[in-house]
Amino acid sequence: MRTMEAYLDNSATTPCDQSVCDIMVKVMMEDYGNPSSLHLKGVQAEKYIKEAKEKIAKTLKVTDKEIVFTSGGTESNNFAIIGSAMANRRAGKHLITTAIEHASVAAPVKFLEEQGFEVTYLSVDREGRISLDELEASVREDTILVSLMQVNNEIGAVEPIEEAAALIKRKNPKTLLHIDAIQSYGKMRLYPKKLQVDMLSVSGHKLHGPKGIGFLYIKDKTKIKPILFGGGQQKGQRSGTENVPAIAGLGVACEEICRDIERNREKLYEVKQAFLQGLERLEGVHVNGRTGEDSAPHIVSVSFEEIAKSEALLHALEERGIYVSAGSACSSNKPAVSATLKAIGIPREWQMATLRFSFSVHTTVEEVDYAVTVLEELLPFLRKYKAH
Amino acid sequence: MRTMEAYLDNSATTPCDQSVCDIMVKVMMEDYGNPSSLHLKGVQAEKYIKEAKEKIAKTLKVTDKEIVFTSGGTESNNFAIIGSAMANRRAGKHLITTAIEHASVAAPVKFLEEQGFEVTYLSVDREGRISLDELEASVREDTILVSLMQVNNEIGAVEPIEEAAALIKRKNPKTLLHIDAIQSYGKMRLYPKKLQVDMLSVSGHKLHGPKGIGFLYIKDKTKIKPILFGGGQQKGQRSGTENVPAIAGLGVACEEICRDIERNREKLYEVKQAFLQGLERLEGVHVNGRTGEDSAPHIVSVSFEEIAKSEALLHALEERGIYVSAGSACSSNKPAVSATLKAIGIPREWQMATLRFSFSVHTTVEEVDYAVTVLEELLPFLRKYKAH
Repeated sequence: MRTMEAYLDNSATTPCDQSVCDIMVKVMMEDYGNPSSLHLKGVQAEKYIKEAKEKIAKTLKVTDKEIVFTSGGTESNNFAIIGSAMANRRAGKHLITTAIEHASVAAPVKFLEEQGFEVTYLSVDREGRISLDELEASVREDTILVSLMQVNNEIGAVEPIEEAAALIKRKNPKTLLHIDAIQSYGKMRLYPKKLQVDMLSVSGHKLHGPKGIGFLYIKDKTKIKPILFGGGQQKGQRSGTENVPAIAGLGVACEEICRDIERNREKLYEVKQAFLQGLERLEGVHVNGRTGEDSAPHIVSVSFEEIAKSEALLHALEERGIYVSAGSACSSNKPAVSATLKAIGIPREWQMATLRFSFSVHTTVEEVDYAVTVLEELLPFLRKYKAH
Repeated sequence: MRTMEAYLDNSATTPCDQSVCDIMVKVMMEDYGNPSSLHLKGVQAEKYIKEAKEKIAKTLKVTDKEIVFTSGGTESNNFAIIGSAMANRRAGKHLITTAIEHASVAAPVKFLEEQGFEVTYLSVDREGRISLDELEASVREDTILVSLMQVNNEIGAVEPIEEAAALIKRKNPKTLLHIDAIQSYGKMRLYPKKLQVDMLSVSGHKLHGPKGIGFLYIKDKTKIKPILFGGGQQKGQRSGTENVPAIAGLGVACEEICRDIERNREKLYEVKQAFLQGLERLEGVHVNGRTGEDSAPHIVSVSFEEIAKSEALLHALEERGIYVSAGSACSSNKPAVSATLKAIGIPREWQMATLRFSFSVHTTVEEVDYAVTVLEELLPFLRKYKAH
């Protein structure tokens, strides 16, 4: 009989905060105007957008006008990469990214490659971290854009963004730096001006905000072209009637998640350490990447010896009310070997036998203890099953 | 003292239906999984998408797999136009559209023009309707796409889509036909197969559904490339975690608005006729375009003699609780001369003195009567003011 439920797939998506839901309902049902309308109902709607922008800008210590709302992380990344490459292609056609980016960065980069751009893919070490030397050697006079993820979504590796930015700007001050912060925003303090970051992508549904909404920070005066064309909303940077309810919800979610990042990090590391300690009891279990405070507080990637396929384990956990991810759940649900796991060079047989456990501020030590207990029960059984 | 409120800006946006809001709240708070997740919570989320697709497909008499969800009408139009042009450019680089399209069609077409495509812009008559002869003469061997709006958002003109489609397909069976149905879906029965339409755009928030969501019908086997790249969701046609709450809400809204189109149309025409009859009492007032059952049931465009700027009238109405639009509210709020009003050739001085009144099934005869009464009071005052 199931005694507990543990949603440990928070890097795939999170439930909405009640306060996020409340403001969305209010906007949908009462303050439903189109922000482009000149009358009172339009002005009310516009006000929600302004307030959300202010809240978000404050968390990043940037100005309101540097925030553009998008339909989510994928659009933010596409906009940053395609929009800035198209706007700056006369200055050069060289891009740099890493071998372990999320598909929403890797795919637009590949699209640009097909359009004649040249791309350097940085390798990563066994812990998923880029080499600053390799980065330095890769930045050229015609490098217009570097796109780096801050926290890897599969293993929680934290990239040295500040050092990378300093190095890039020193070598070529014109090179733009885009950060995929979808797994890092709200989990660590992020100040683009201090970091020397030109663009930064965030998604709502990873931080107890709404699905279908995200934003792109674009440093003032950055040359970027829109990728969606129409009515010229958001100063022509992103056409389409603004998704006011979701924007209002995102503002609330961002404010909330950034309110006390330090305490939340502490809490998340506590949960993570409890989980890691629990895993130590189990045999034939390997944690990928770093595990200390230099790793993301909310992601643990675990490879299991003698397990043929992670899906079998995933479904066995599901039966016990534990929800986790096989590799990254953000790509569509075909099982494929993860580029990240390959890039960090884990043994081939483990690549298909790896699960991601990801936490939120609502995750408790009891939940991860429960997950360890269930794993302890399940693993011998599944291994025996494999042996037959 | 204000006695009444009349929201007559339903072509800009509509309030959400309660049933739409209810399902969104349930999905946001309880069934919040990522549809790409392999576990139960992902499967639950996927089910909402499947159900919404089935509901929508049924209203159009098409199959589920021909529906792709987007972030709204603007993305649907961009996807249809840019995606199909890019996929078919080896077959030709000629496009056809009209002079009165919404910005979310006109702007991507202009983008393609800058990329080397050739565009024919069809003119319209004084009632905003294209000429089938001109269309026929324009279709060439290298015409890969025709994009037509079905109902003009500013004056409610209804284009002869069925005749246009037959003619296009006769002259060049390879030419794709895209219909911007954002103002027509839910207002008239629409069967793409019968109409011989290859793509059809719909937006959620025009039909009491959520903002930030829409769909594109794409006829099976139509060659189209994605415009957003990433995790390969929706069979690679539109990457990005699906906006499940809004998709579920859209499914409910589409089912609801199509449940009894005939009765709704009747009700809308009743409201429209009451408004038109009321306007007849007023002097110096001109209704643009057709007004019978061959016009959209929910849009009335009115030009006012001796009014310097529609905004003055708009704000005077707003003071009395009546919300209307100056031209089209879908473009960002800079006042500019409307391309549609120019194209139908209304006198120059009226172009800036035109208001759009747009209704929904919830609009009552009392509300439009109230609007006429208030106009009757306001017009002499505003005209006097102008004369000074």
